[in-house]
Amino acid sequence: MKLLHTADWHLGRVLHHHSLLADQAHVLNQIMDYAVAHQVDAVLVAGDIYDRSMPLADAVRLLNQTINRFAELAIPLIMISGNHDSAERLGFAATQLHKTGLHILTDIQHVAEPVWLRKADTALQIFGIPFADPERVRHVFNQSVTDYDAAHNLLLDQVKAARDPHFPALLMSHCFVDGADTSESEKTLSVGGSDRVSYEPMLAFDYVALGHLHSPQSKGASHIRYAGSPLKYSFSEHLHKKGVTLLSFNSAGLVAQAHLPLQPLREMRVLEGTLNVLLAQGQQDPQRDDYIMVRLTDTTALLDPMGRLREVYPNVLHLEKRLLQTEPLAQANPNHIKLDAAQLVRDFYAQIQGEPLTDAQSDIINATLTKLLQPNQDNSL
Amino acid sequence: MKLLHTADWHLGRVLHHHSLLADQAHVLNQIMDYAVAHQVDAVLVAGDIYDRSMPLADAVRLLNQTINRFAELAIPLIMISGNHDSAERLGFAATQLHKTGLHILTDIQHVAEPVWLRKADTALQIFGIPFADPERVRHVFNQSVTDYDAAHNLLLDQVKAARDPHFPALLMSHCFVDGADTSESEKTLSVGGSDRVSYEPMLAFDYVALGHLHSPQSKGASHIRYAGSPLKYSFSEHLHKKGVTLLSFNSAGLVAQAHLPLQPLREMRVLEGTLNVLLAQGQQDPQRDDYIMVRLTDTTALLDPMGRLREVYPNVLHLEKRLLQTEPLAQANPNHIKLDAAQLVRDFYAQIQGEPLTDAQSDIINATLTKLLQPNQDNSL
Repeated sequence: MKLLHTADWHLGRVLHHHSLLADQAHVLNQIMDYAVAHQVDAVLVAGDIYDRSMPLADAVRLLNQTINRFAELAIPLIMISGNHDSAERLGFAATQLHKTGLHILTDIQHVAEPVWLRKADTALQIFGIPFADPERVRHVFNQSVTDYDAAHNLLLDQVKAARDPHFPALLMSHCFVDGADTSESEKTLSVGGSDRVSYEPMLAFDYVALGHLHSPQSKGASHIRYAGSPLKYSFSEHLHKKGVTLLSFNSAGLVAQAHLPLQPLREMRVLEGTLNVLLAQGQQDPQRDDYIMVRLTDTTALLDPMGRLREVYPNVLHLEKRLLQTEPLAQANPNHIKLDAAQLVRDFYAQIQGEPLTDAQSDIINATLTKLLQPNQDNSL
Repeated sequence: MKLLHTADWHLGRVLHHHSLLADQAHVLNQIMDYAVAHQVDAVLVAGDIYDRSMPLADAVRLLNQTINRFAELAIPLIMISGNHDSAERLGFAATQLHKTGLHILTDIQHVAEPVWLRKADTALQIFGIPFADPERVRHVFNQSVTDYDAAHNLLLDQVKAARDPHFPALLMSHCFVDGADTSESEKTLSVGGSDRVSYEPMLAFDYVALGHLHSPQSKGASHIRYAGSPLKYSFSEHLHKKGVTLLSFNSAGLVAQAHLPLQPLREMRVLEGTLNVLLAQGQQDPQRDDYIMVRLTDTTALLDPMGRLREVYPNVLHLEKRLLQTEPLAQANPNHIKLDAAQLVRDFYAQIQGEPLTDAQSDIINATLTKLLQPNQDNSL
């Protein structure tokens, strides 16, 4: 029996005002191709299906197309809700859909009800723990739980009590396992309190299909694993190796797991250098359509660097400037401001006119700036 | 074969800041009771399932409970999307749900695909035309349609071409049939242009189950019918007789239709009179929990009439005052304003102190108001 484990699709994600829907459709197609090529018996999606609790219509359409494709392929899809999803909205009609091979597990009151997969002599029970914060668990079960670990353990105890010991068991959970690597695009679950859960209580499952963290990684043991997101969802993820995890089971349990890489429609890269070097290099860059974050190392002021970069790299999404980053204006002393302002005018003039200020012009600029920047004076001009 | 026709549930509707969810659950229970009592073979919901395109989680939960109840009863539910619904969101997983007896028809590209109901020697084909504006129809079919009537006729032509002439046919449509009675809680579909569609092209169906207008009514012929909303959704509907329509078919077509009344959790009433009369009358009113709109006929100013009314009628949701209504301040002349202001102070004083202003106090008030209201003067006090 074979399964694909994926997570954190974040359908409808927008990166620096740029919709990633086409990129998402691209990698979802690859996941379907893998599912067909490896003849998997189910695909597991461990939460954060959508990027927001009220997904836009386009994101709903993409998920709808995806579930329809899996239905045509007769491949069951098992998903849990993550912290980005609305459990109520994602879980609509789940009871009916369950009969059709689309298993949407969003209700923590039903964590003890597994989805069973059977093939030849192998039977596998799959439990899903959707994301739930301690307040929700406390409210639903009327138990005193104060942190994520206690909440997760309470749900885990229900799963363990329901588990049939004669057959292997797989657990899906959307949570933050202690000590795992993070990236910028995962929402913090808890501000102040601890949002971490421990891996030890999950060791006894044959496999734990985790969602929440975007970098593929195992935690505590190789079979407790984040598949990671199928795409890079922030520039902090630009070095991640995105993919899905292929699992093989026999009647005794897990026999193999492997990372299958996904190829994005556009790569994500961080480029660093001066504007002129990057502009020159971009002319030769065969991957100029990639999503680019630029860190400019110029120490002089620049006119419309984003516009000029986009003429070469059309998908520059974000720009960091070392000058402004390392010497914020508000902390500089007045003389320093004057210096910067004079430099700014000189650079601006040179870029617009194609030649530098004359000495006479520079003198006028300096005198004006000195007058303007005198502290505690009436600066009316 | 029996069917129930209902429409315009508007789940999640809020009336003057008051959620109607409990009221909606109450009438949905009655619809289910009718469905069981009359052993109907399907329930038709002709659009505006939700009140908004992004329904709140509570509204999604109520619809989910409702579809689960109908699934347990093994009664198919056939719904189309209305102008309040998001076709994409409501239509999620429709392909899968179709197999489970929940038919959600939201895609105008599939209007030619009927739901078939069969029982003994009767077979009925049910077509659904979800709400679609002319722009959408023009875009999807690449046809020149400029108004709602043309758009509806284009979709109707597809239905007619697909209709099997050997069996009766029922059409569901969410649209505004020309000349029908309106109420305040139906959104205007088109500002300026015509939002009406003609009934004549629908005459040849055995029954037309309409949605959009909230008052139950037939249009053009008795079998072209709005079932109306199950609840009063604005005070302009306070005289409506809400209900659902029960239909009986045999193999030749429609044989009977009947209006079945629904009892709201709370009635909706409009009360008119002076504050004191209404407060006194409310003490004896056995229906004091009704949703109330009050039209006050007092000609003097009143202190906190809403607060005082709510002590007697806890669900007063809206208040109209004849004084302010018939003599808006902005149109009065300055002398009139002064008169009103003096009256206002007198009434206020009397209500707070329990006795009228003395003549000396009145003189001071009048002098002050005269000074304050002198035009083009510096009114600093």
